[in-house]
Amino acid sequence: MRSTRQLNEHTDLAAIAPLLYVAWADGALQASEIERIRDAARARLDVPDEVLEGWLDPASPPSSTELLQLYRFVRERSRALDATERGGLVDLGLALAQLDGSPSDREAKALALSEIEAALGIVGREVARHFFEDRPPVRHDFEEAAPPFDVGAMTRALDGEHREDWERVRALVRDPRLALDHAPTMAAHRARVLEQLLVLAGEGIGALAFPIEHGGAGRMDRFVKHFEALAMHDLSLVVKLGVQFGLFGGAILNLGSARQHAQLLGRVGDASLLGGFAMTELGHGSNVRDLETVARFDGDRFVLHTPSASARKEWIGNAALHGQAMVVFAQLETQGERHGVHAFYVPIRDEDGAPLAGVRVQDCGPKMGLDGVDNGRLWFDHVEVPREHLLDRYASVDEDGTYHSPIASPSRRFFTMLGTLVGGRISVGAAAVTASKVALATAVRYGALRRQFGPEGEPEQALLDYPAHQRRLLPHVAAAYAHHFAAADLQRRWRDHEGEDNREIEALAAGVKALATWHGIDATQAARECCGGMGFLARNRICELRKDVDVFATFEGDNTVLLQLVAKSLLTGFAKQLSDNLLGTLLSEVGARARRALLETNPIHKRREDDEHLLDAGFHGDALRFRAHNLLVSAARRLKRRTDAGLDSFEAFTAIQAHAVALARAHVEAHVHTCFLDAIEALDGGPERDALEGLRALWAVWRIHEDVGWFLENGYFEPQKARALRKLLDRQCADVREGAVALVDAFGIPDEMLGPIAFEGYAAGG
Amino acid sequence: MRSTRQLNEHTDLAAIAPLLYVAWADGALQASEIERIRDAARARLDVPDEVLEGWLDPASPPSSTELLQLYRFVRERSRALDATERGGLVDLGLALAQLDGSPSDREAKALALSEIEAALGIVGREVARHFFEDRPPVRHDFEEAAPPFDVGAMTRALDGEHREDWERVRALVRDPRLALDHAPTMAAHRARVLEQLLVLAGEGIGALAFPIEHGGAGRMDRFVKHFEALAMHDLSLVVKLGVQFGLFGGAILNLGSARQHAQLLGRVGDASLLGGFAMTELGHGSNVRDLETVARFDGDRFVLHTPSASARKEWIGNAALHGQAMVVFAQLETQGERHGVHAFYVPIRDEDGAPLAGVRVQDCGPKMGLDGVDNGRLWFDHVEVPREHLLDRYASVDEDGTYHSPIASPSRRFFTMLGTLVGGRISVGAAAVTASKVALATAVRYGALRRQFGPEGEPEQALLDYPAHQRRLLPHVAAAYAHHFAAADLQRRWRDHEGEDNREIEALAAGVKALATWHGIDATQAARECCGGMGFLARNRICELRKDVDVFATFEGDNTVLLQLVAKSLLTGFAKQLSDNLLGTLLSEVGARARRALLETNPIHKRREDDEHLLDAGFHGDALRFRAHNLLVSAARRLKRRTDAGLDSFEAFTAIQAHAVALARAHVEAHVHTCFLDAIEALDGGPERDALEGLRALWAVWRIHEDVGWFLENGYFEPQKARALRKLLDRQCADVREGAVALVDAFGIPDEMLGPIAFEGYAAGG
Repeated sequence: MRSTRQLNEHTDLAAIAPLLYVAWADGALQASEIERIRDAARARLDVPDEVLEGWLDPASPPSSTELLQLYRFVRERSRALDATERGGLVDLGLALAQLDGSPSDREAKALALSEIEAALGIVGREVARHFFEDRPPVRHDFEEAAPPFDVGAMTRALDGEHREDWERVRALVRDPRLALDHAPTMAAHRARVLEQLLVLAGEGIGALAFPIEHGGAGRMDRFVKHFEALAMHDLSLVVKLGVQFGLFGGAILNLGSARQHAQLLGRVGDASLLGGFAMTELGHGSNVRDLETVARFDGDRFVLHTPSASARKEWIGNAALHGQAMVVFAQLETQGERHGVHAFYVPIRDEDGAPLAGVRVQDCGPKMGLDGVDNGRLWFDHVEVPREHLLDRYASVDEDGTYHSPIASPSRRFFTMLGTLVGGRISVGAAAVTASKVALATAVRYGALRRQFGPEGEPEQALLDYPAHQRRLLPHVAAAYAHHFAAADLQRRWRDHEGEDNREIEALAAGVKALATWHGIDATQAARECCGGMGFLARNRICELRKDVDVFATFEGDNTVLLQLVAKSLLTGFAKQLSDNLLGTLLSEVGARARRALLETNPIHKRREDDEHLLDAGFHGDALRFRAHNLLVSAARRLKRRTDAGLDSFEAFTAIQAHAVALARAHVEAHVHTCFLDAIEALDGGPERDALEGLRALWAVWRIHEDVGWFLENGYFEPQKARALRKLLDRQCADVREGAVALVDAFGIPDEMLGPIAFEGYAAGG
Repeated sequence: MRSTRQLNEHTDLAAIAPLLYVAWADGALQASEIERIRDAARARLDVPDEVLEGWLDPASPPSSTELLQLYRFVRERSRALDATERGGLVDLGLALAQLDGSPSDREAKALALSEIEAALGIVGREVARHFFEDRPPVRHDFEEAAPPFDVGAMTRALDGEHREDWERVRALVRDPRLALDHAPTMAAHRARVLEQLLVLAGEGIGALAFPIEHGGAGRMDRFVKHFEALAMHDLSLVVKLGVQFGLFGGAILNLGSARQHAQLLGRVGDASLLGGFAMTELGHGSNVRDLETVARFDGDRFVLHTPSASARKEWIGNAALHGQAMVVFAQLETQGERHGVHAFYVPIRDEDGAPLAGVRVQDCGPKMGLDGVDNGRLWFDHVEVPREHLLDRYASVDEDGTYHSPIASPSRRFFTMLGTLVGGRISVGAAAVTASKVALATAVRYGALRRQFGPEGEPEQALLDYPAHQRRLLPHVAAAYAHHFAAADLQRRWRDHEGEDNREIEALAAGVKALATWHGIDATQAARECCGGMGFLARNRICELRKDVDVFATFEGDNTVLLQLVAKSLLTGFAKQLSDNLLGTLLSEVGARARRALLETNPIHKRREDDEHLLDAGFHGDALRFRAHNLLVSAARRLKRRTDAGLDSFEAFTAIQAHAVALARAHVEAHVHTCFLDAIEALDGGPERDALEGLRALWAVWRIHEDVGWFLENGYFEPQKARALRKLLDRQCADVREGAVALVDAFGIPDEMLGPIAFEGYAAGG
């Protein structure tokens, strides 16, 4: 009954030919679909029933040959049409029917064809292009528009006052002596990292923070900046650098006396004396105050001892292989009295690298990342340490065993000794930002090169032109800028207040470290996933950075614990402002006032959803500060209610932990926003400033939108504002996409440090 | 002027001694603090000015000796007090003052002491315990309560009808031949995985899905279950198993004819013939339809050729080292006509393992994880393939070059050939759940063992007793259960509809794969971070699983692309229900109706915040379905608006990508919830059912709360309900914590597969 000759015999069959082809080519027709097609055709088209049935028989669908003939029929006929007649399947059908010059009842035909199209669930116009367009060859070239700003000028804005340090590191990582290898064995990796550490020491980087008289430059800020910038290289090398010069050297610098500086710092700085920082114990990671290792003064010298299994020193960098000495933290005991945790200089290996008597060493073994760092464990079995090896800037013991300290308060002494960790936290947070830059630069460039899918008849589309891809990647680029400026700000504050007891900077260091390192994980993870399998290959560097940066979230202070420190510091500051007796009253007063202010002044603000408002830095700053303040007041109230009810402060604080973490995050995000704004305001007007402002707005809208539930819950937004913000987020991503490649190029990461896919696109790894 | 003897001379100085000690011991006093202390003391206490000044001199804070004497004074005096008198610092001070029998003006004194306490920002009662309690030794023992349900019964509920398969795998992974090594070199790892693959083949696991006549059991469902369960072992072995038997064998099984089955399946099943699945090309990962490799029939045989750099086969498992043959996907061309992507059986290595003529092989090299799998690249240079090597169940070519296929529709043929991937997606999603179980079981047990910090005077507290720790870890345990049941449900559906063309199951497979693998990443990451440095050590297994599972998010279909498939499938189904002409009207009608329904029936619902309601499965199901439906209708409207405006459907769909991803997630989450409910309802009442119900509620509240902004934005909640939900989430975590160890023990992961920290706690790795 069915034959493709019928197409030439029945005009109205020709009219539905495109629809028939698409229907059958898409798979088997369902009974309900057939019914609706049949109804529509019978009612309004002129095709004999038996012909129609032949083409709609579910028991005998067209063969591949028939489908091919159907296809060719439509294709050949449609070539005769003008481009203007090439609409959707309905228009195409009508045009085919009219080629034979029978324009009868066009309205009815159009209706029938539309009904059939709807019955088949076909949406859109481009299906018809199948028939009259040749699919052009797929292209894979890189077609970025000219950068919307001066990339070099942006790099200078990022480098800021440390331009010289950044440029030096950029040159250094291209030095053949610092060449990278990918996925070496653990042993080869450690050997290479040691060699490269010696190169850095030879370049004077190790001693930068040390006094000039001991071969240094007296510039802690420049040491930290080198650490930050070198994170574009192998993070194992960066961590080894931090262990040797920042922790080992830093402990001697901060806790040792001038005499000890003279004895040790020269050899530490040129790396002829390798060492580590033996603080953490197996049972005592975050809780340093409860370390168990004991240094008991026996009338002549200290006796260092590991009293239990949980007291072994754990995770000590440079301990497994290369360290000749350690700064060991232990409970100082003399004359039967304990004086808390103190630091001791303790040689652990002889010149042949064998452990000294009483010292036991074990390799921590393979890790998720950072295998180039020889982390180890240490046990001390009554090891004798000369009295002079107590780092004695803040505490000393006389020959007769009398304990002295210029800091009377044991608590203050403890925190002073922990001061070394602040520099570590500042450095680690900044290094995480650099690592995320390398991964993001690779992924953004790859996204602009790599094409996949696309509109029918068009070249495939670059990944970065897909909104979902933009949404996954570009907010992280904005965050890398935001955290870059926050890290630089923090380093400046720390430098300008060096040596002062500044709890505010310590809290900020803890908070920025937590957010920047978690973002380092998120950003490298997004970059990994956005590069698909290519991101999983070691040679493209992203997954290497991802694995290494992972531990940044838990070392130098576990992020969750650090955020609780931030919250405690905020709550203590808040409580100090208020007298205890008044506290309750004031808190309810403040709460009521805040609610009143919100209700009275905010109704317009709550509903404004124009772009001018939603992109405004003032709105963003207000929102972020409102959240931080509101969380602080409510945390204080909850805490007060619990202590009033008889909980001790540990229990009370534990009960509101989730609140405390939210408070700390909110506080740090508000701070990061301020730093971003400050960085923008330091620039003259111009395209770089405009680009930064666009990034800042993207970051702020992203952060506010991520917590939109909180803002709605607390009545700061009306729902329509939340909706507007969500849409704006997508648009702002599209906006930033224009300059995305330039924005990551402005990080100034040398090509050698990026994954090859940043340049080859799809052809990477060939 | 200052002397500790004054403490015995002035009763009121004794009263403030505890406060003075705490103040100075906490660090330097600030000028403002000194002023407020001085004012309070002068107004209401009887201490001579010069004495007070001596103790408040910022230029001369107490020495360490003086502080120690102050401490001892308070401590010794306070020993004389009853336990009832040992309150905070104020009570303590009052009690000390009364020891000398001078109870004068107690009110004024109490006020003064309170003011001083407030000035110092001291909160809480436990500071005072410093003076009269000895801190007991730190304990590290495991003190879990008896499990609140029968762990074995729970395991049986999880194992379900595949109890036997699970038990067999549990026994098998303890087999010495399957012993694990940690962080071996890549070469050693690949060699070990190959050996263990042969063990599994020897056990008959490889052939489970193959027909009985070819040495199999005809049980695809049991093969998938073994794959799922074996993911508690090394994921490299699991992936190798999937490549050899699931993809290579599966392609021959699904796409080959009976003749080809007879020739090949026996040798594939016993692994005497090793092979792979060469589909993906460098330039064509997700977009399989546009593969470039050509198989041109030249009148005698096919000539297989790689026409360009982007056409090389990429990421092919078993290609780099062990594969003797491949199923290669290529564009079939005969008689000058292309017929789309087809599969060919292609030997690639000779008996010595050398590549055959025309075949070029390259190792993909080191990866982020899965280094035990020898992924490789393949190029074909006019390789001759016999006509009979076209897997010819769905297509064949005559000797004269005529193309035949029982499936006329090229589109349907294409999707039929891709059917092999559905099994892969189902398996990979389930394997990710198992991997997350291993990591979570290790982390939860460690959290219950490991203690850090604690209330003053108490033993340190287990990590898992901290709300923040519970909040990070326990929702993932609930999700592992949820995804376990969803995976089991999916496998049942697939089994019961085997061989049918079921787009709904394919969409579900894509959606569950995306959510389960992303959750696998999140859960192993949370476990890693919750174990701190211990989680970073290779031997504790968590980071190994974390690295391996990472690629699950992008292989077997990139998750973001898969979610778009899900959304497309939902939108197509929705559009088919409605006639095109009516579509616009209906959509606005549906939207209006939904809004009306919400406003009319919901005002109480929106505000209910009692536990009974918030924990109710009906509420959770409604909320999840409401979101899925609402996102579907709004996506359809947005799509329609764009196609009406002249965008083609690719452009229109691209424009709403973020919406599509949200829709797909919402749909799959509503589905997962239904699966969880079904699993619970299949159980008799009892403690296991109660425990599962608690987990289900935790999971549902967590998921709804994660998207609380959406529910608020769409008026489904009032703000106070959102707040109640947030609080409930914390409480539900605390609730689930009670049985947490039992819940992860019920996964039935053999001890050998867990990290040692699951048992040793703090003492791990010694």
